[in-house]
Amino acid sequence: MERTLIKELGKHVGKTVSISGWVNIRRDQGKMVFFDFRDRSGLVQGVVLPASAAMEVAKDVRNEYVVRVEGIVNKRPEKNVQEGKMNGDIELEITAMTVLAVAEPLPFDMSAEGFNLDLTTELDHRALVLRHPRLRAIFKVQAVIIDSFREFMKQNDFFEFQAPSITPTTAEGGAEVFQVNYFDKKAFLTQSPQLYKQIVMTAFERVFSVNKVFRAEPSATTRHLTEIVSLDAEFAFIDSWKDVRDMSEETVRYVLKQLATKCDAEIKLLDAELPTMIEKTPTMSLTEAQEKIFAVKGRDARGEKDMNPEDERDICEIIKQETGSDFVYIYGYPTRQKPFYVYPNPEHPEFNEGMDLICRGVEWLSGGRRVSDYAQLMEHVKTWGMDPEKISMFLEAFKYGVPPEGGFAFGAERMTMQILGLKNVRQACMFPRDLNRIDTLLSGATE
Amino acid sequence: MERTLIKELGKHVGKTVSISGWVNIRRDQGKMVFFDFRDRSGLVQGVVLPASAAMEVAKDVRNEYVVRVEGIVNKRPEKNVQEGKMNGDIELEITAMTVLAVAEPLPFDMSAEGFNLDLTTELDHRALVLRHPRLRAIFKVQAVIIDSFREFMKQNDFFEFQAPSITPTTAEGGAEVFQVNYFDKKAFLTQSPQLYKQIVMTAFERVFSVNKVFRAEPSATTRHLTEIVSLDAEFAFIDSWKDVRDMSEETVRYVLKQLATKCDAEIKLLDAELPTMIEKTPTMSLTEAQEKIFAVKGRDARGEKDMNPEDERDICEIIKQETGSDFVYIYGYPTRQKPFYVYPNPEHPEFNEGMDLICRGVEWLSGGRRVSDYAQLMEHVKTWGMDPEKISMFLEAFKYGVPPEGGFAFGAERMTMQILGLKNVRQACMFPRDLNRIDTLLSGATE
Repeated sequence: MERTLIKELGKHVGKTVSISGWVNIRRDQGKMVFFDFRDRSGLVQGVVLPASAAMEVAKDVRNEYVVRVEGIVNKRPEKNVQEGKMNGDIELEITAMTVLAVAEPLPFDMSAEGFNLDLTTELDHRALVLRHPRLRAIFKVQAVIIDSFREFMKQNDFFEFQAPSITPTTAEGGAEVFQVNYFDKKAFLTQSPQLYKQIVMTAFERVFSVNKVFRAEPSATTRHLTEIVSLDAEFAFIDSWKDVRDMSEETVRYVLKQLATKCDAEIKLLDAELPTMIEKTPTMSLTEAQEKIFAVKGRDARGEKDMNPEDERDICEIIKQETGSDFVYIYGYPTRQKPFYVYPNPEHPEFNEGMDLICRGVEWLSGGRRVSDYAQLMEHVKTWGMDPEKISMFLEAFKYGVPPEGGFAFGAERMTMQILGLKNVRQACMFPRDLNRIDTLLSGATE
Repeated sequence: MERTLIKELGKHVGKTVSISGWVNIRRDQGKMVFFDFRDRSGLVQGVVLPASAAMEVAKDVRNEYVVRVEGIVNKRPEKNVQEGKMNGDIELEITAMTVLAVAEPLPFDMSAEGFNLDLTTELDHRALVLRHPRLRAIFKVQAVIIDSFREFMKQNDFFEFQAPSITPTTAEGGAEVFQVNYFDKKAFLTQSPQLYKQIVMTAFERVFSVNKVFRAEPSATTRHLTEIVSLDAEFAFIDSWKDVRDMSEETVRYVLKQLATKCDAEIKLLDAELPTMIEKTPTMSLTEAQEKIFAVKGRDARGEKDMNPEDERDICEIIKQETGSDFVYIYGYPTRQKPFYVYPNPEHPEFNEGMDLICRGVEWLSGGRRVSDYAQLMEHVKTWGMDPEKISMFLEAFKYGVPPEGGFAFGAERMTMQILGLKNVRQACMFPRDLNRIDTLLSGATE
């Protein structure tokens, strides 16, 4: 008999069907055995009645066994219907069961509703725990974030390119870079596709990439991973940095809209709430934000060169109260605090046209207008004390006519974590890498 | 005036429009100046008539300048129409021109129809050469290959995941792996997402990924890169390896179909021809292929443990002649020649159920059925002399019930190269990395 996917069972009431999947939970009740079966499409309850020919097999089948099951799709009696749950109104009366693969006894209870392993155990058993509906929901949300980003980019004529992981030099210096033994030479893992996306933009005008970036941060905080998925966009023919803000705002809006429709069940399961993006996200300069915090909270951060976590939380709280928006853009950082490619405000060159999108107290996205004029770029290279030889490919792109341009970037794991209200970014990464762990704990590491 | 994209100009005949883009070519003809303008959407010819107010600016505008141009969209006289070319029937009569960015004189002629730099020069100036229509066409084709793969996977319920780049060990050993200095420890760049995609498959049933893989091959051939984009799929509940063959065949068929519709212009520009995939791609065992080569060509490769390049060329030639197919599947390799996870044919365990798809004499795709039974897997680990500790996460996934499963993978650059008939895989990679080059030549390297 042809396999029916579990989510399709409601269409076959009264008929005999065959499903294939895992035993999500086995429950013995007197002489009957109940199972929840799981396949890629969902869950369904099945029951083996005492007289069923399937009982002989069913009695030995434990959680996570893989089975092929034949049975009759029955409507449940009114009183047993579980509203709002997939297949909550039907049940499979099992007539035959074949074991496709056995499972060893599980090292911990995966069936509990309040499934809540400590993170170390969860990571030690990632390969198994991935099967839990909560984890599958998290990574479904992440897949939709990434795919919605690509969708919106393509709808807006952005060209997808593959940014390299191995780079020849560390353009911006810094210790937070991984070194690769590249034959008998040295190379590095990329910290950002920034310079590459700007190069490709000069040829394709509008570009995006979904690629790994690597940060050798020797810190084991809840917010840092050494390998992350970076969603990057860059586009030309802007009139000002406000075009970059608008494009990034519409990108985030589109992602949230897709999540609301495609991940409704997952977001409910994870008890999360999508942030509110109002029609026009409030936007203010760093200086204005500092003034506002001082005025409303009485806390004086005026003149500081960047937002610290407390500033970010405060400004979000204020904006939420004033406008209902969970988001706020902050722009205009001190020029010399930021990388050489960020465009200085022509009227106040001590402040730049870089920006951050903050949501619920945490930075989600960074971007801004870039320096596109070759002479100005070379001047910046000098002022920032950089070696032009090390970025010669990048500089060549700007030698030959580059329109006003800008772009933005955000990390898939950070965004997943924030949207779902997860406590640790490792929960938002399938195979998190950090100071102490690459799949298993590194020798001598403590967590 | 609002910007009009160049590909939309045909809709505005008789009207005044504003376009923004690069000067693709400037041609002086007596007192008139002709330009080809380029934006992300295409090319159009413009002319500055001797009396035009735009002449003052136009006279200094060279190739690759970025300009904003106002002009009237005119129908061309019948005799000047260029059939089959975007905007071949119109011309922009330029009334105003503003320079948005200047360009230095180009280091070589980018306008020539027969543009054909030697590869070293092309790579030395990748940032500039990317602007050439030939290169943009190549990477458009590649983007469509990658995106069509994802599209087909999603249509078939495959779940997208992000495979890691940094790995703790080299499961399969081998010298061709890059080592990363991971804080004070060692890590490696992944050679394949094989084990990870199998892990994630055990949770999501059908999975795919588009991720980088790294090969430290110290050879500088036309077919090797150190960093490539791997398109990977893995799925459960197969009846036999033939389900894997079928899924991979339909994947390639879908990609080819998308290329035929979405990249028609690019394929023509590059003078390429898509390979022919007939209704059912011919499939034969390694032994059968060797017999056939002997029977038809008289060349005796019978008993060899693998296909060599000559075998691959010969079998493709024979199959093409016999069936019209550019593709052929070869399956059934000697079990011990291949990795531990490949499923041995239960009736002839000395041969496995791995397979390759060969096209026009070159391998495009590899895959097959995997060992999914935990006891059998542990036996293989032992026979292959592997350290189970090093793949403990992978092995844990298979401890708890895994259905019969298989998968396949192919490289985006290799496929781009083969489809377009490029001579060197470096032409099919935007920023190719090899033994001698990462963007620029590595110090002391020769090419």
